[in-house]
This record gives sequence, C-alpha cells and structure tokens, in this order.
Amino acid sequence: MQSVEKWGVLEVSCTGKTEGNPFVDYAVWGEFRGEQEQVRVRGFYDGNGIYKVRFMPMYEGHYHYRVSGTFSEDIYEGDFLVLPAAEGNHGPVRVFGQYHFKYQDGTSYFPLGTTCYVWNLQKDELVSRTLKALRESPFNKIRFCIFPKHYVYNLGEPRSYPYEGTPMDSRVLTEENFDQFTGNTQLSNFDFTRFHTEHFRHIEYCINELMKMGIEADLILFHPYDRWGFSKMNKEQDSFFLKYVVARLAAYRNVWWAFANEYDLMDKSHEDWKYYGELVQKEDPYQHLRSIHNCIKLYDHREEWITHCIIQRTDLYRTSENTDEWRRTYQKPVVLDEIAYEGNIQHGWGNISGQELVRRYYEGICRGGYPQHGETFTSADNILWWSHGGTLKGESVPRIAFLRKLLEQSGVQGLKLWEKAAWDEVCGVPEKDEDPEYYLFYYGFMRPCVRNYHLKEEKSYRVRVIDTWNMTIEDRGVYSGSFKIDLPGREYIAVEIQEGVHA
Amino acid sequence: MQSVEKWGVLEVSCTGKTEGNPFVDYAVWGEFRGEQEQVRVRGFYDGNGIYKVRFMPMYEGHYHYRVSGTFSEDIYEGDFLVLPAAEGNHGPVRVFGQYHFKYQDGTSYFPLGTTCYVWNLQKDELVSRTLKALRESPFNKIRFCIFPKHYVYNLGEPRSYPYEGTPMDSRVLTEENFDQFTGNTQLSNFDFTRFHTEHFRHIEYCINELMKMGIEADLILFHPYDRWGFSKMNKEQDSFFLKYVVARLAAYRNVWWAFANEYDLMDKSHEDWKYYGELVQKEDPYQHLRSIHNCIKLYDHREEWITHCIIQRTDLYRTSENTDEWRRTYQKPVVLDEIAYEGNIQHGWGNISGQELVRRYYEGICRGGYPQHGETFTSADNILWWSHGGTLKGESVPRIAFLRKLLEQSGVQGLKLWEKAAWDEVCGVPEKDEDPEYYLFYYGFMRPCVRNYHLKEEKSYRVRVIDTWNMTIEDRGVYSGSFKIDLPGREYIAVEIQEGVHA
Repeated sequence: MQSVEKWGVLEVSCTGKTEGNPFVDYAVWGEFRGEQEQVRVRGFYDGNGIYKVRFMPMYEGHYHYRVSGTFSEDIYEGDFLVLPAAEGNHGPVRVFGQYHFKYQDGTSYFPLGTTCYVWNLQKDELVSRTLKALRESPFNKIRFCIFPKHYVYNLGEPRSYPYEGTPMDSRVLTEENFDQFTGNTQLSNFDFTRFHTEHFRHIEYCINELMKMGIEADLILFHPYDRWGFSKMNKEQDSFFLKYVVARLAAYRNVWWAFANEYDLMDKSHEDWKYYGELVQKEDPYQHLRSIHNCIKLYDHREEWITHCIIQRTDLYRTSENTDEWRRTYQKPVVLDEIAYEGNIQHGWGNISGQELVRRYYEGICRGGYPQHGETFTSADNILWWSHGGTLKGESVPRIAFLRKLLEQSGVQGLKLWEKAAWDEVCGVPEKDEDPEYYLFYYGFMRPCVRNYHLKEEKSYRVRVIDTWNMTIEDRGVYSGSFKIDLPGREYIAVEIQEGVHA
Repeated sequence: MQSVEKWGVLEVSCTGKTEGNPFVDYAVWGEFRGEQEQVRVRGFYDGNGIYKVRFMPMYEGHYHYRVSGTFSEDIYEGDFLVLPAAEGNHGPVRVFGQYHFKYQDGTSYFPLGTTCYVWNLQKDELVSRTLKALRESPFNKIRFCIFPKHYVYNLGEPRSYPYEGTPMDSRVLTEENFDQFTGNTQLSNFDFTRFHTEHFRHIEYCINELMKMGIEADLILFHPYDRWGFSKMNKEQDSFFLKYVVARLAAYRNVWWAFANEYDLMDKSHEDWKYYGELVQKEDPYQHLRSIHNCIKLYDHREEWITHCIIQRTDLYRTSENTDEWRRTYQKPVVLDEIAYEGNIQHGWGNISGQELVRRYYEGICRGGYPQHGETFTSADNILWWSHGGTLKGESVPRIAFLRKLLEQSGVQGLKLWEKAAWDEVCGVPEKDEDPEYYLFYYGFMRPCVRNYHLKEEKSYRVRVIDTWNMTIEDRGVYSGSFKIDLPGREYIAVEIQEGVHA
C-alpha cells in the first residue's frame, strides 16, 4: 500500500482528456477519508494528459481516496497509510494565542525569515547556491514570488513563466528606462488560461527543498513589479490563478499565502483583495497562514481572512519601534517583513548597516513582533540576495543566528512589551505573564554604564549581560529585589533576567 | 570723558541709603540719552550702600545719563562717549527672517550651543578649565542656570547662593535618597528679599568671559532641580527675582533669557509663565531673546513673548527628525536644546554615541533647525560637562567644529527642508530660495553607493561629497541637469551641491 507521513504530500496522478483547454474545460476533485477526517480537495491539470490531486493528511492511519470529475469517465480509487511524522516534520505553522506562532504539533515557531523575491526563478546553479546559503543560515522562512519580477537589478529573463506565451524582448531594457515598461500589457503575449506547468513544477521543487530544511515558503501571490501583464489580469483571471495555485501547492505543509508584495501599488480594489483572501480561505483545505504586505499604507489587518500582519515600515525612522502599536491596532501577530534591508544600494529601503538591522530586530522582538531579514549589497554580477538569492554577505546574519539561539534557549514562547519598562529601555516579557519570569531588556543605541532593576524580593533571578553585536553573554550571577548591574557603556546591549535559573 | 564701545556695558555706580532692606525699600533708575535713542532702565542694589545702573548703547556718539530714585536724595548725572564696536563685537543676537538668527550688525549667527547647567557655580579652577575648553571649542552659546542644581551628580554645595540665608546640610545626601529632598522648602532658610550680590557678580564675570570669546549666555531663569526652595518661590518672589536679574544682566549683549529648564516639572501655571515672559519683555530695554524649555510637553511657542523655540525631544527615536514639523507649528526658529547628550550614564537622555549626536545635528540642520550639544560621560571625579563643565571628552565636538566651518564657508544664512527631497534623504536649501543655489543632502544611517540628482540643465553646480564623521571633503567636479554621483556606501555621508562655485 502507498504510504505517506503525517503532514506529507500524498499525490494521486490520473490520466484524462486532452481536447480543448484542459486547464479550463475539465474539473478534477479528490476525496480523502481517514478515521479522523474527510477532506475534499481540488485537483489540477499538469499537462500531457495528466491530472493530479494532492493531499496533506492531518492524522496517522488508514485512508481511502477517490478521484473523480469531468476530466475522465473513470473514477480513481485506492487506499494509503499515513505514518507518523518523521523527525523535523512538525506540521504547518499556526497562529498561537493571539500574537505568536506554533507548529501544528505544538513545537514553538519563532519566525526568522528572509526575502529573496525570485530566487526560485534563477538558473539551477544559483538556485543551488541559495539553498546552500539557506541551509547554513538561521532562517526558517523565506518570502518569494510565483510571478517573475521586473525592477531595478531585475531586467533579465526568469528561468520560466507561469503561463504559455511569449514575453517582451528584455534586451531593450536599461536601468534608466525599465520603469516605462512596468505594467505594460501590450508587448508580451501570454494566455492566462494555460499554465506553463514546468514553472510550477520547479516552484514545487523549491518548496520541497525548503521543507526538507525546515524553512517555511511565504509565497507572494501578486506583486506590481511586472512587464508581462501578470499584475494586470482581471478578477476572473486572478481567481483562476489562485485556484490553480492552491490546488497545486496547498498540500505542502510549509506554504504560507502572502497575497501581495505592496498591494497598494496595484490596480486592485479593496473588494478585490478581500475577495481573493476569502477565495483562498475557502479553497485551502489546510488553512495555511494568510497575509498581505503594504508599500505606503498598511492594509486593515483586522479583516477576518488575515491570520497575521506582514508590515513594511511606513516611517523612515520609527520602524520596529511601532510594533506594539500595530499589535494593539490589529490584535494579531506582527511580522515585520520590511524594515529596510542591510546593504549599500541607492535606495533607502536597502542600505542600512548590519548594526541598524540587528537593532531593529531586538527592538521589534522586545515589543512582541517578528522582524525579518533582507540583504541588498551591490555586486559585480548584479546578484542581490534580496531578489536573486546567492550568497549571504552581510554582518547581520551571524547576529540573527545568535539571537535565534538565545530565544530557543530561553524557552520563552513569545514576548510582549513589558508595561513597566522605563521610558529609556524596551523590555520583552512572556505574553501571558502577570508576574514575569523572564525579562529581555534592550538599550539599542543608548549606552548606559549601569542600570537599576526592581524585581520581586522573594524570588531569585539569573542576570546575563548580552552584547548583541559582539555576540557575547556574560553571566552576572543571581539577584533578588532591587539591584544594580554595571554595563559596558556600549551600544546594542541587552540584559536577560530569568527567574529560577541559576548560574 | 567716560567711554564705552557700542553694545558694551556702561555702568554707573552710586552710593545710597542702607537702612532697612535696600533691595526692597528703594528704587534706582537710569535715563540714558544719545542722539538716536533715549532709554530708561531699572538699576539694582549691589550691597554695601552701592546702587548701580547698567546700560547697553545701541549707537555711537555722545550720551548723557541721569540716575535718580528713592535710594538717594542726590541725582547722579554725567556724559559719556560711545565708540565703534571693537572687533568681534557684533551686538546682541536677533531673530532673522522667521526661522534664523543674526547679530544686530547683520553678521550671520548660527547657534552651535552646549549645555553646562551650573559650570558657573563651581570652584575657580573648574570655571577656568571650562572657559579654556569653550575657547578651544566650536561652541558659540552655552545654556546655564542662575540657581544651583540639585540632582544626580549634583549633590555638593555650589560656590554660592543667590540669596542670603543658610542651605540644608548636603552631607545627608546620597545618589539613592537625593530625590526625596527635591523641592523641599523646609530644611533651608533663605531670605527671598535679600540677594547675595557676590553670587551675581560671579555670574557677571562668567557672562563677561563668554562675551570676550563671542559666546552667548543662554541663562536659565527657573528650574525644578532644587532642594533649597528656589523653585517654590511665589509669584511675587519670582517677579522680584526677574526684575533684579534683568536690571543686573540685560546690559550684557550676549545674554539670552531661557525661562525654564523643564517648565512642566515646576509648580507654576501657564498664566505664571506667560506673566513672567511678559514681565521680562517689559523690563528688558534691549529685547534679548526669550524662550522656554520643556520636559514632557512642549510649551506653546506661538505665544507672542517667545522669540524662538527651545525644545527637548519628546520621542526617544524621532528627535531632530521633527524639526520641520515644529517649524510649521510654531513659525519660529527651532533650537534643539536637548536631543540626548553624548555619553554613557545610566539615563537615556545622556548616553548616545558621538555618531548618533552628529547624525541628529545634520538631520536637524537640513530640516532648518539648530541642534545643540551636551556631554555626559561618567568620570572618577564626578565632573560631567553637562552640569559642571570641565573638559570636553566626546567624539562629537571635532565633528561639530567641522560642521561649523562647512556652514560658514557655504555663505548660506539658514536652511529649510527642500520640499523636493526624496523620501530617503533629507536636503537643506536656503530659506528664501525658490530655485535653490545651495543643497545639503544628507543620508544619515543610510549607506547609498550612488545617488541621482536632478537639477537645472542651464546651471552648473559644484558637487562635494562630505564624510561628516571622518571629516573629509571630496571635490567631485562641476555638473548640470541630471547626474549621478558615486558615494562611499558608508553611514553619515552628505553631498553639498552649490551653484556657480567652481572646483
């Protein structure tokens, strides 16, 4: 009997009709029945007369499947066995409590993501290089697109297109003129009713490689940086695209749905976005995480279809400093996708220092949010991590790894801003803790040589001084009540205070 | 004949009655008559039967004086000659246009000030050391108090008190308990009707020494950091104090009146502050600059008696970034007295780096304001520049000197934020320039490796790349129209573009 692990991908492949346009003309559905669940999922046409249905089982044990539809006169049925999840397979990520995340199996998930918009659409060698870099990195999430990207540093051809057709000739493009072609629907000729299945198969390869490394695939469904017309499809075409994407990809446990990069730069109305969000909410049997990313104006993340906020900062100066305000406003987890990237390009969104990015990390984490990474260094080969992947060059990455380890070792599930923090510090404490057992004080660009702490007299706390930039941890012993800690008088110092842990 | 230079101090000293309390019981007035002005000024009792009247002439030529009042049955009269101002004497500083300053003689004045709250109340050796440090510094203004200061690092006795009486015993004070004594009027015993004249004579010495160096004395009239009762005087006592201070000090051309340090921490109503402001406006024959400094809540600087805003930042993160907004709100020059000091003490108002302070300078200047300096480094002798003066230790001072030279060489009178600046840069241009001849672009914590500029085709501009931290200036030649400039991809870079100046 066929078998699959829990939260793995069970695929049933069938042959069917090829007349007309099989993407449009025929339907394929799968029904999957186990002891504890019964799920009906949409299948998809994969070219060459092959129709497929994919399924992610939530339980172990015996299952029965039945694939049927207008694609064939036949009905395909069979049985399979769902085995226990293998090591490293914790299921899909879910919202935990109100502001944080966990894997389905209860394992803590602290999103430490990066952005490589179209790493997946590069040549094999570069895709491999990116996978290697990710494997050696602290990142457990990556944000990327299904559609190719047309933008500065992104003028060449992607490895493939999502539809059958012919793209405009990219040889006419220069750094100076490229923006005149943005949103141009005339120069390319794609058939938005026929998917180029190889494009999707390659994305599936990428998602699968990420899954093996325990990295979530935060898929960007729409974005405005386009010269082929993909950003200008109508509502029917968009919906057709979304159903196909969900049918193909939802069975991968590490998929997240990011409805847009910079929704507010696109010609779609609020009603459109809400419709697409609710469409995917209806289509996706597994309820993967759903979110939408802004340029200038934040989307109203209170809407029911949105599971968590993904935010691009809207103020050049106050970035992750607004995290706690966004939490109060939207009452959902706050993931800070873009708070400027480490780099040196001409644009203010991509030229801050590693120090400043790491500062924004601690500031955001102590305020109960999840700052994310990106890297935009100029290079002779015009390969920038932010869009193409490749090799990580910045100084922030090892510090993010250090932070990841620190958080994992603390055992804390997620922080919020401590209400009693002084005006000149931020301090994260566990979410549901009236009398905190854990404190992460952070001083950012301030350089105190000493600080006073006022905790409980009857408890004892281990105090550690953390240089977040130089990645050192100094154990300072155990204290109770009010006490004073000498600090190095440098920037980027945190003080971790944990109850009941002895030096 | 007695003589004095224009904007110098002409003092007439007379003997008079000593019965009762001469500070309260007798009046002394001077009338000064030249060809172009006639001024009546209040005199003051200086102890030992001596009454004095001081006068600052605004014009050259022959003057006549006449001193009279209840202090004596006699009338004192005489003539004197006002000579041209000597080199370095430009008269008092005035508001110029709406947002900037000039000396009375038209010379440009760009406030680059520092804060040493009670440097003047230290022992002679330390006062001399401070004067030496100021002489070697770029500063042309210093903010300090008439009353002594009771605060952390300020627990000892000042060199003198402004009133006759006995202070509380400072030996009981510790860093831990001092705040319990703040505002205590019971433990000291001062007579608020009898000034201790030596206290004021020493302040006059200090003002005069500053004057010789071309440094403005921004005198803080009231402040809350007090254990002797000076902050708790009633309206009558405050008014008596203000009249005496104006009578003694207004003739010094370098005096400015700062009504408070942190007005909102004092037990005075808005009506009180307005009354004091208008009182000094009425009493001061020379109309020295008047301002009032906040802690938490900005004063409404639109009030008529206020000549310019002095601001302590109210957001830990956005500091001089708010300058242009404050200009729009108050329609007056914006001096940023406190945007955090360079240092390493425990408090967030005094522990930023030199880099960050200098960044705040350029940010504020490009937005049309005037950031100011302060320094709070811990030291074994507990002498901190911020309060006691002494020696400058920080890294920002040479960069401020570099900035002063840059601004002086530009010949520009005062900047405003260029409306056409991109979202990821600030750019200062001359105030009244529809088609700017001068641009100071600044990139702060951003690190662009290149930027594009779009200026007039028909004009030519000298371009200089300025590393504001490393204090280097690279001449990049002359450009017109749209052009691209390679930049170092480091933090703290400015680009100065000046029309019609050739390399």
